[in-house]
Amino acid sequence: MSNLQATSNGPGNHPAGHGAGEPSLTTQPLPASKKVYVAGSLPDVRVPMREISLTPTKAANGGAPTPNPSVTVYDTSGPYTDPTVTIDLQVGLAPLRRSWIEGRQDVAELPHVSSEYGRMRAADPKLTDLRFQHIRQPLRAKPGLNVTQMHYARQGIVTPEMEYIAIRENQAREAHAASSGNGNGNGQGGVRQHPGQAWGAAIPSRITPEFVRDEVARGRAIIPANVNHPESEPMIIGRNFLVKINANIGNSAVASSIEEEVQKMVWAIRWGADTVMDLSTGKNIHETREWILRNSPVPIGTVPIYQALEKVGGKAEDLTWELYRDTLIEQAEQGVDYFTIHAGVRLPYVPLTAKRMTGIVSRGGAIHAKWCLAHHAENFAYTHFEDICEIMKAYDVAFSLGDGLRPGSIADANDEAQFAELETLGELTKMAWRHDVQVMIEGPGHVPMHLIQVNMEKQLAACDEAPFYTLGPLTTDIAPGYDHITSGIGAAMIGWYGCAMLCYVTPKEHLGLPTKEDVKTGVITYKIAAHAADLAKGHPGAQARDNALSKARFEFRWEDQFNLSLDPDTARTFHDATLPDHAAKISHFCSMCGPHFCSMKITQDVRDYAAQKQLDEQQAIQIGLKEKSEEFKKAGSEIYL
Amino acid sequence: MSNLQATSNGPGNHPAGHGAGEPSLTTQPLPASKKVYVAGSLPDVRVPMREISLTPTKAANGGAPTPNPSVTVYDTSGPYTDPTVTIDLQVGLAPLRRSWIEGRQDVAELPHVSSEYGRMRAADPKLTDLRFQHIRQPLRAKPGLNVTQMHYARQGIVTPEMEYIAIRENQAREAHAASSGNGNGNGQGGVRQHPGQAWGAAIPSRITPEFVRDEVARGRAIIPANVNHPESEPMIIGRNFLVKINANIGNSAVASSIEEEVQKMVWAIRWGADTVMDLSTGKNIHETREWILRNSPVPIGTVPIYQALEKVGGKAEDLTWELYRDTLIEQAEQGVDYFTIHAGVRLPYVPLTAKRMTGIVSRGGAIHAKWCLAHHAENFAYTHFEDICEIMKAYDVAFSLGDGLRPGSIADANDEAQFAELETLGELTKMAWRHDVQVMIEGPGHVPMHLIQVNMEKQLAACDEAPFYTLGPLTTDIAPGYDHITSGIGAAMIGWYGCAMLCYVTPKEHLGLPTKEDVKTGVITYKIAAHAADLAKGHPGAQARDNALSKARFEFRWEDQFNLSLDPDTARTFHDATLPDHAAKISHFCSMCGPHFCSMKITQDVRDYAAQKQLDEQQAIQIGLKEKSEEFKKAGSEIYL
Repeated sequence: MSNLQATSNGPGNHPAGHGAGEPSLTTQPLPASKKVYVAGSLPDVRVPMREISLTPTKAANGGAPTPNPSVTVYDTSGPYTDPTVTIDLQVGLAPLRRSWIEGRQDVAELPHVSSEYGRMRAADPKLTDLRFQHIRQPLRAKPGLNVTQMHYARQGIVTPEMEYIAIRENQAREAHAASSGNGNGNGQGGVRQHPGQAWGAAIPSRITPEFVRDEVARGRAIIPANVNHPESEPMIIGRNFLVKINANIGNSAVASSIEEEVQKMVWAIRWGADTVMDLSTGKNIHETREWILRNSPVPIGTVPIYQALEKVGGKAEDLTWELYRDTLIEQAEQGVDYFTIHAGVRLPYVPLTAKRMTGIVSRGGAIHAKWCLAHHAENFAYTHFEDICEIMKAYDVAFSLGDGLRPGSIADANDEAQFAELETLGELTKMAWRHDVQVMIEGPGHVPMHLIQVNMEKQLAACDEAPFYTLGPLTTDIAPGYDHITSGIGAAMIGWYGCAMLCYVTPKEHLGLPTKEDVKTGVITYKIAAHAADLAKGHPGAQARDNALSKARFEFRWEDQFNLSLDPDTARTFHDATLPDHAAKISHFCSMCGPHFCSMKITQDVRDYAAQKQLDEQQAIQIGLKEKSEEFKKAGSEIYL
Repeated sequence: MSNLQATSNGPGNHPAGHGAGEPSLTTQPLPASKKVYVAGSLPDVRVPMREISLTPTKAANGGAPTPNPSVTVYDTSGPYTDPTVTIDLQVGLAPLRRSWIEGRQDVAELPHVSSEYGRMRAADPKLTDLRFQHIRQPLRAKPGLNVTQMHYARQGIVTPEMEYIAIRENQAREAHAASSGNGNGNGQGGVRQHPGQAWGAAIPSRITPEFVRDEVARGRAIIPANVNHPESEPMIIGRNFLVKINANIGNSAVASSIEEEVQKMVWAIRWGADTVMDLSTGKNIHETREWILRNSPVPIGTVPIYQALEKVGGKAEDLTWELYRDTLIEQAEQGVDYFTIHAGVRLPYVPLTAKRMTGIVSRGGAIHAKWCLAHHAENFAYTHFEDICEIMKAYDVAFSLGDGLRPGSIADANDEAQFAELETLGELTKMAWRHDVQVMIEGPGHVPMHLIQVNMEKQLAACDEAPFYTLGPLTTDIAPGYDHITSGIGAAMIGWYGCAMLCYVTPKEHLGLPTKEDVKTGVITYKIAAHAADLAKGHPGAQARDNALSKARFEFRWEDQFNLSLDPDTARTFHDATLPDHAAKISHFCSMCGPHFCSMKITQDVRDYAAQKQLDEQQAIQIGLKEKSEEFKKAGSEIYL
């Protein structure tokens, strides 16, 4: 594991070269950005945000420049972008939630891992070189206790995690609204912003810890926070919060290594992934997961059936409930924050897929379906669902109820199999809630645009508003190589309609394993979708960054425009491809139009013209209106004869 | 111009290297594709389409393979992808519409070009090396006659252009529906397809020449077809037809050359651009345009005010109606098919932009605004609008009424200035229609998702259903470097709502001039948006290609999956990045999951299992249903106790 060292990329280095064969870890802050921490009520509630500083606006008449307030944005990148933190992947991140977890006095440290498989791996000397060296003893709820955030919420308790989340979701908006005109400040939270269309979401103008608690108690939001993943910075998934995105990583039997997966995780959160799913299916899944968890500041999700299948040599019919159960415990004790469980793939639904264009495309769904048919028996994840709930609540693992029968093509969208499973997921949601276990619901898939909203509506109805978590959906099948885009369209729309988390799709979807560059493209595309959804929902303050970037653009503050972008490196590289000189970055034009044709420059001229004439803008408007009336007459007589 | 030679790229060559500095012309057919021509009633109505051949489906039991019918798709690439045509950019394309135009006996060949500027350029010996060598004498309507397609339509005439378009829009769907089950054929035109939500569009199941005529007569669709651009293959823009896309090219004062622009045009149509706008603002605009027109099989649009401004050295206040008029005639006689005319930027609206976040971002709009303010006079394009109509109808140039006051940021979306201009564009539409001049309406710009549909609704109402032609819209401002995606989301949505043509945005938007690779990315992104819109509208047969590709995917016919993609080269390259061997392209798995985890393989196993048991699928379903009822009881008593 000697490659797992932090190395730095200068901010100007375009990382295109870091493909699968070239591991490296990027830890520098983004350009013009610094990590700030907002304090909560406890000394160790320190909520990280990214503050982007801006340059001042020059005065047209040569007067004093006007400063532009910095913009604070949600920051998923963890300690990796804090230059004051020493990163050592061999040691892992600091367990920031450990004291909160222990403070609740409802968990006990186990003497050894509970799963048979986990013990076998721990004892295998051949794995010494691969194994993470600082594995903690696992925690588990004391007998009879329930350690889920939902359980606390339903007791009326506001946990430190909930306070942390409230601060995080507000993005220091109020402090900034006070110091900033933000263009022409007005509207929500001091930010000039269009009222949204929220389709029934009810987002308060300020998120309080109590609101977080109430939403979690209601089941309308989840906080994936396994007691064995104290490194994670608390975050929330629910339609009354910012729309979140997930990035998938994971090696396969065919390609990729542990180093690459850890680096991909760090890379994905650098660009904005809110959670990461480790979908490894190759060798050493157990060890890979440990490295990822110990170094991940975001919740980690998995699909345990993948590993279970590996344990039986890929023969689905050899799976047993006991083996699956052992796998759930193994992963829960490592710290996985949410499990995709395909308990809705019921035996009677399998034949509904026979006439489909693309059958069952969910890997987990297909494994369960094969087992069901081979044994002529109901899915063991369904029949043992309450047993699974008992495991989940002992560690606070959240359900991500898998859509094993999601459509894999436009033709199969919204069919009987898909919606039959959704109804079952609704039943299971209520069952999990009776155990105070947190639940989100996975959704499609491939859906043409006009059939997307009904997916959201049915999910809200069937699952009583448990958070929806969709893969895209892809809005057409005809563009392999561009499925980040075919799905980004659907993701933005379903996010607007109320989907709480969007699972990214990379350009390699359907074709191959994503490289680091593909991971970045997928994450940025989904950040766009999530943010477009926040804007359309009218999420308070969402427009602040758009306004700041557009103001910078209009004022030819090129550096600020780059730095406010979701991907400053690419924005700068693209600009410099045509005009590399420093002078071009302080020019009042760019390569698209040249100096004579720049509309923004001409608009400035229009304003300057008004200034020359000693007119303020209000006077200009009045003169305009006077001219308007005169011109109407004149124009009318010339044109309408 | 010695670089303007056809050279070939093998189909496997990824063209990533063809940046701005590396001109080359790609003329080969796309992989597994051949150009076919569908005959009309006249011998010279030969409508090109692209036929993609597919490999057969192997039988699971080793029996005879089942052939898969080829898929015929709309083809914008012109003669460049027909290996039987010799391409010589120095000579230009064959003037396929010439005999139809002359057959109508309403045009006269002029002895020389009518515009002063055009004559000056023609006489300038310094331009000999730059000049296209086979310039035809221009055609113009005989005195008092009107040569627009709208005029013919309103006379009840079905032109060969209209017949051509009817054949083209049908995409040989009926022939294929007959020969193909297309998965499980049923639904529209023999294609298994979801009923759409068309928002008031009324698309017949089969397009007839008479339907084309009626839509053009009604003003609900346009056929951009200048009599001086006989090389163009007729196409139509209207909400009851396939959604179209436009690609912008054009050199600027800062960068790029004539060669590059011609090559970009050929490149853009290779990937699917339905029209191309030449937005050149640098030197030699006149000569560049001639080269582009003589080699373009798609309609060409321009913004004549750009060239007019160049003629006055970039000083907007020095523009005159006479100079603008001369420019319109100059370009009309070269063969430009549609002009963006910013006649809606009225003096009284200019002050409405003063409080905007980003003022006026349309270049043309800003030029007219500056002129208006400098002269305290109404926009000459507005006051002379009927004079412009006289020019348009003498050559059949269509109006693309420019949205000079479109929003340039999310903050400015749907504001008073934008909608005031739209009302004026509605007035001007009716004025143009009184002259039987074709009109489409340009639209925004930057609009958050929830404010997109009202743009479409207001446009339809204000402009009496004249086709809408929007730039994106971008759904957020925060991702420079990815504005093909921020805008592709909005484009797909507004296309669904009824927009007839989507103007592409490349990754370089706001940052620099697009390279060839950027042009391709922009075109493919917009083909995705347009096709997603066609699917959502329920365009007859739109799902055929999705179905064929998904069937190929499900059957592991990798080559077919690549070849049916909008970009076969990239799909193949991405696949081969992980599994380059030929064997991997006939494997029943891929690099994402490996052989054990492939859900599609497992689904096949499920079906094989049923086959083994001597069950057909119908029996499997019945057994499933029987089991369903048993399992319901069993599961119920186990789970709900």
